[in-house]
Amino acid sequence: MSASETSAQSAQIQAYLNQLGQQAKAASFQLASLSSQQKNTLLQTISARLSANVANILAANAKDVAAAKDNGLTDAMIDRLLLDESRLAGIIGDIDNVISLADPVGKEAASQLLDNGLRLTQRSVPLGVVGVIYEARPNVTVDIAVLALKTGNAVILRGGKETIESNKVLSQVIRDALASLDLPEDAVQLIDSPDRAIVSGLLRLDNYVDMIIPRGGQNLQRLCAEQSSIPVILGGIGICHLFVDKKADLNRAIDVIANAKVQRPTVCNALDTLLVDQSIAADFLPHVVSQLHDLGVKFYGCEQSQALIASQGADVTAADDESFSTEWLSLTLGVKVVADIDEAIGHIRQFSSGHSEAILTDDIHAASYFMNQVDSAAVYVNASTRFTDGSQFGLGAEVAVSTQKLHARGPMALDALTTYKWLAWGDYTSRP
Amino acid sequence: MSASETSAQSAQIQAYLNQLGQQAKAASFQLASLSSQQKNTLLQTISARLSANVANILAANAKDVAAAKDNGLTDAMIDRLLLDESRLAGIIGDIDNVISLADPVGKEAASQLLDNGLRLTQRSVPLGVVGVIYEARPNVTVDIAVLALKTGNAVILRGGKETIESNKVLSQVIRDALASLDLPEDAVQLIDSPDRAIVSGLLRLDNYVDMIIPRGGQNLQRLCAEQSSIPVILGGIGICHLFVDKKADLNRAIDVIANAKVQRPTVCNALDTLLVDQSIAADFLPHVVSQLHDLGVKFYGCEQSQALIASQGADVTAADDESFSTEWLSLTLGVKVVADIDEAIGHIRQFSSGHSEAILTDDIHAASYFMNQVDSAAVYVNASTRFTDGSQFGLGAEVAVSTQKLHARGPMALDALTTYKWLAWGDYTSRP
Repeated sequence: MSASETSAQSAQIQAYLNQLGQQAKAASFQLASLSSQQKNTLLQTISARLSANVANILAANAKDVAAAKDNGLTDAMIDRLLLDESRLAGIIGDIDNVISLADPVGKEAASQLLDNGLRLTQRSVPLGVVGVIYEARPNVTVDIAVLALKTGNAVILRGGKETIESNKVLSQVIRDALASLDLPEDAVQLIDSPDRAIVSGLLRLDNYVDMIIPRGGQNLQRLCAEQSSIPVILGGIGICHLFVDKKADLNRAIDVIANAKVQRPTVCNALDTLLVDQSIAADFLPHVVSQLHDLGVKFYGCEQSQALIASQGADVTAADDESFSTEWLSLTLGVKVVADIDEAIGHIRQFSSGHSEAILTDDIHAASYFMNQVDSAAVYVNASTRFTDGSQFGLGAEVAVSTQKLHARGPMALDALTTYKWLAWGDYTSRP
Repeated sequence: MSASETSAQSAQIQAYLNQLGQQAKAASFQLASLSSQQKNTLLQTISARLSANVANILAANAKDVAAAKDNGLTDAMIDRLLLDESRLAGIIGDIDNVISLADPVGKEAASQLLDNGLRLTQRSVPLGVVGVIYEARPNVTVDIAVLALKTGNAVILRGGKETIESNKVLSQVIRDALASLDLPEDAVQLIDSPDRAIVSGLLRLDNYVDMIIPRGGQNLQRLCAEQSSIPVILGGIGICHLFVDKKADLNRAIDVIANAKVQRPTVCNALDTLLVDQSIAADFLPHVVSQLHDLGVKFYGCEQSQALIASQGADVTAADDESFSTEWLSLTLGVKVVADIDEAIGHIRQFSSGHSEAILTDDIHAASYFMNQVDSAAVYVNASTRFTDGSQFGLGAEVAVSTQKLHARGPMALDALTTYKWLAWGDYTSRP
């Protein structure tokens, strides 16, 4: 391609994105004035129209699955993008849950009459336009559109190319629901081109887009952090640690460790590295390794732990800084013997992604110290890291799990899709 | 310079920044466990040591002023960087104010016993490491270090090269105060090289820095938005609007407009564009223009307003999209006659930087409509835009004025320098 062709193409992408952004912004102004009841009626309409379109949606999804097979995707990847009647019913059922949640928009806080004569209040309002970039999970299309509309936001969706047919039908059903209520269709827009230059352009659309949420792996998160001029909510990457203190109840500890590692190893709150106090390592490690080995776990062990792991007939590789920096997302576990709680905390500070960490101990002093010193989104005493989740935390809905510190941290609920504005009433009041 | 020299230099900068980052992060862990009393003692010590070093500080500042004169800086710029005894006393006095404020760290919210057996709470904690990039205002060095330390954060400062001598002495006095209390000096680090590549590197130091605050003009804000992989708090750019509704009390309106435009025209909350309802324009504009003209204001007028402005003998230039997109920071005012409140709101949506907007009206319906429809950090009814300010809002301290929507919006107080972590206690609890 010649330079002038490239430049023409890039101008075309920019024009397309500007239009998308303008449309989303205009729609967001309309959404911002809807009442909670109007927004819930919209969600009910979406739910009903999705139910009425099950056959169309499954047919579109079947095309995606067929293409995935043609393209040689793994069974695990095909399973992720697959919809069937039961999964679709689950997605639609979740909409009822969102309808039942309180609307975080319109709350007023910090209201006061100031000495300068102004009456001041801080009112919660929608963010405006949210851009969501995600991978091959068609449920995200519905989930995120519904959460955005519940909070009066417009959304620009860019899903994985592997689910493009499913996403087209799902987003069209939602747009039809909007139109049927005389609401702006462009409250939900899908980018249906697989062109990666569009993602880079979307990340620079700061005139129109107020927040970017990347829902996907490490590479997508880094891309967004590095390229975006729009605020990004990074998240969903968990290098999670569990420290077994010398005063832990070792019998009860094993079940919690197994839960953290094995219950659902492919998710971000699953355990990645087990830290064990050296004074109990020789007693405890063989037991826990034996049980985890039976459950199919393979190990990366530090120098001190390798022989203890191997003694149970388990697979063990020498651990290094690289393996301790890995989010396994599989039945693999790093193991490190530490001199004491401070070495455990030091290891966590060096290698954690700031998602979830736990201590198991019967020592109330050690428990407090660990909670105060460890700075991650979620810190547990005597509990599995698997609890870091919007529904487990009683938040009702989960937009994402943030591992950054601004705006929202850990499981993000509906209120993370709002901001606030300051409103002040005077009587032709000037600043003295 | 050869390519290999450039690359060696860039490796050197990276090593320097990594060291800075590591030191700041290590210091931040120590600061996070300080009690409010310990932090206030630190601030008192800083205040006392600054008072004891007035002569050194003024001598260093005199060098900056001399260099500024040699380099031909304008009087206005020299005035911005100048310290004298009275200004320094003001800076030191502000520390007492910060000491008296409540410490936002350590609050717990959302505490509950969950159905799954966990006791959950959300505890406010320091952000960690804050990077601040600012221009030639030595007061920022003290202000921001004090606010960061009050909230248990480490800070990396990069001030303008025009105040390097002042900043070196000020930051050294603060570091000495830290050391005198056996606290980590590296809680406050100054980048004293004028090399711009260091700023670019700092903006990518996301392993260590949790937030970037640019305190400066449009170019600095854009640089940070575009280059930073760390969350940035954009702010301090105000293209502010005031709409005179047809039902405004026109006599009382004039004083508010004059206050918004003239009281301190060089700051971000000063008025930039006056929007006037067409039904009152012919009556009202000559009066307001006449008064503002007497106060030295020059005008950019829309087609409809130019003749009315010129009739008062005032300077008027034809306004266009570019002038309506300008933050004047001077005695210049854009004027536009609009058909109605909707055109006023449309103009604000198109041209505002999202800082501060006001409506003047006696019509309660118009007032509500304007407040609901305009989405800026601060929206006023019958008041000057000049009120958008931490102290006017009763917040005690102002870290910055944010014009973005995530984390903090409008005047940012101490709590914007904190985040939270989720803490959960179980009894060897696994996720079902």
